[in-house]
Amino acid sequence: MSRDVILITGGTGFAGSHLVEVLLASGETQIHVTCQSGRGGFVSQLLPADQIHELDLINFETTANLIKRLQPNQIYHLAATAAVGSSFNQTRKILENHLELQLSLLEAVRQFAPKSRILAIGSALEYDTTPTSPHLVIDETHPLGPVSPYAVSKAIQSLLATSYVKTHRLDVVLARPFNHIGERQGLGFVVSDFAAQIVKIERGLQTEIRVGNLLAERDFTDVKDMVGAYQLLMHRGITGEVYNLGSGRAHSVQNILNWLKASALAPVVVVPDPLKFRPLDINSIIADNDKVCALGWQPTEDIKPTVERILAWWRTQKI
Amino acid sequence: MSRDVILITGGTGFAGSHLVEVLLASGETQIHVTCQSGRGGFVSQLLPADQIHELDLINFETTANLIKRLQPNQIYHLAATAAVGSSFNQTRKILENHLELQLSLLEAVRQFAPKSRILAIGSALEYDTTPTSPHLVIDETHPLGPVSPYAVSKAIQSLLATSYVKTHRLDVVLARPFNHIGERQGLGFVVSDFAAQIVKIERGLQTEIRVGNLLAERDFTDVKDMVGAYQLLMHRGITGEVYNLGSGRAHSVQNILNWLKASALAPVVVVPDPLKFRPLDINSIIADNDKVCALGWQPTEDIKPTVERILAWWRTQKI
Repeated sequence: MSRDVILITGGTGFAGSHLVEVLLASGETQIHVTCQSGRGGFVSQLLPADQIHELDLINFETTANLIKRLQPNQIYHLAATAAVGSSFNQTRKILENHLELQLSLLEAVRQFAPKSRILAIGSALEYDTTPTSPHLVIDETHPLGPVSPYAVSKAIQSLLATSYVKTHRLDVVLARPFNHIGERQGLGFVVSDFAAQIVKIERGLQTEIRVGNLLAERDFTDVKDMVGAYQLLMHRGITGEVYNLGSGRAHSVQNILNWLKASALAPVVVVPDPLKFRPLDINSIIADNDKVCALGWQPTEDIKPTVERILAWWRTQKI
Repeated sequence: MSRDVILITGGTGFAGSHLVEVLLASGETQIHVTCQSGRGGFVSQLLPADQIHELDLINFETTANLIKRLQPNQIYHLAATAAVGSSFNQTRKILENHLELQLSLLEAVRQFAPKSRILAIGSALEYDTTPTSPHLVIDETHPLGPVSPYAVSKAIQSLLATSYVKTHRLDVVLARPFNHIGERQGLGFVVSDFAAQIVKIERGLQTEIRVGNLLAERDFTDVKDMVGAYQLLMHRGITGEVYNLGSGRAHSVQNILNWLKASALAPVVVVPDPLKFRPLDINSIIADNDKVCALGWQPTEDIKPTVERILAWWRTQKI
């Protein structure tokens, strides 16, 4: 039986809930999660209530007390504030929140569990994706150049985590996930948005699906592969190193829509929505995943069954 | 007569005061400076009182009101919090302060003077200087990898400024100065520290000079050349681009000490102080300055007269 004590910050969110499932399937029992509010949603069906800790990581005292008490040796650090809106107040809030929660966690670990390994989840959005070419393959040496406040805040978290490795010798490994998809992902992400709209059409609640740039190609990974990579990095990642996590294959949004249409139980009318087109979109963004694959990661090649699974999941939901 | 309205944030500090001198010598009259407290020190001898604005840039309202009223077309953004101490509270404070003041200025300009050009002063410390080789020549494509909280906070400011160029099309040029030295630089910087100690020896106030790693080589630039580069970048820099500012030559700390000893009016006994040795020091850090030199910058080749000038200045000071 594993003697690992595992803490997952943001463990009741989309990726977090899949990570809990994977860790349970691996035989882990000491899995603790933090969530900012609520009772844990789906994860409350997986873990006992005393392993679900409601707290705001921004609060250093409560964060430090939890780390001190649990003495985790593995921390999957997934917690992030959803990026809502683009007003100055929202910009300021997401930057402050992500800076503060990162500082709070790093400092709590430094003071009370300095041997714990932290897997810090960043984002592919930290990279510079200014369109220099229509197709962009990004490896870990690609320069940083975040655009949105959310992306800037994730880059800030990376820089801060790396500085704690150098200054305080904390054992942090950095992951930069590209797009990942699966059941329980919220609206606002393209595959969930499409699937939810198709279910509404099937239920007669709407007649058409509104879409943005269908030519855009993104590197979509099944969330189950993604959290598998998290687990791999926790065990085999090198301290202070960054690992891109993505399938290494681009899929056009058009393809995903086609698969969903083919599985739909009602005719689907597609309507372009100019509001959903973003001027900065570049055609294709792909992860160079050589570094994580060299550690033994093998993501599923075919994303079509994942897309169909997502549609099936939305059919079980009230929307 | 120039019709430029110039605002220098942090304009009463070390580099700021030299920049005011250079701009006055260039015939500029509409030079405004901000300072966080005090009456402007040396700069109060150069500018009328109504061009010295005491305010905390972190306060968005007062910052926005100043930008709205002055309508500057050139903003030299030098303001920075001195990095004092390394406790967690200091770490948190410098990160928060530098994030907040950057956001506040960028947002004030976006809202009230969106055509203004901003020269954002970063730091060579934003770069990764993890010792991979004893000699490190850094160009603008070198990866970021700040170590100290101060350095992380400067990298945060760069990322944020660049995101405002991409998202809001602000006209920001980014400077990354390497070490620069001159009169009016505070203690805590090696040349000032040495010169001040030698003046104390000359005055019979101490008998020896305590030193750290004399073999370390750094790229020292005369502050007058440095602020000349600021002025050049304001006029010729390309929006969104980063420019390294450094002489492109390394000088050993030993050399600087030798020049000062040779100019000293009393015998100087040198004593190594283990507390001043930093384990992460690498031998030599040099700016690749091709990019700014291509715009016409030519820093003075010989730094020895600068060092002698600094000693002469300390002799005029009460210490």
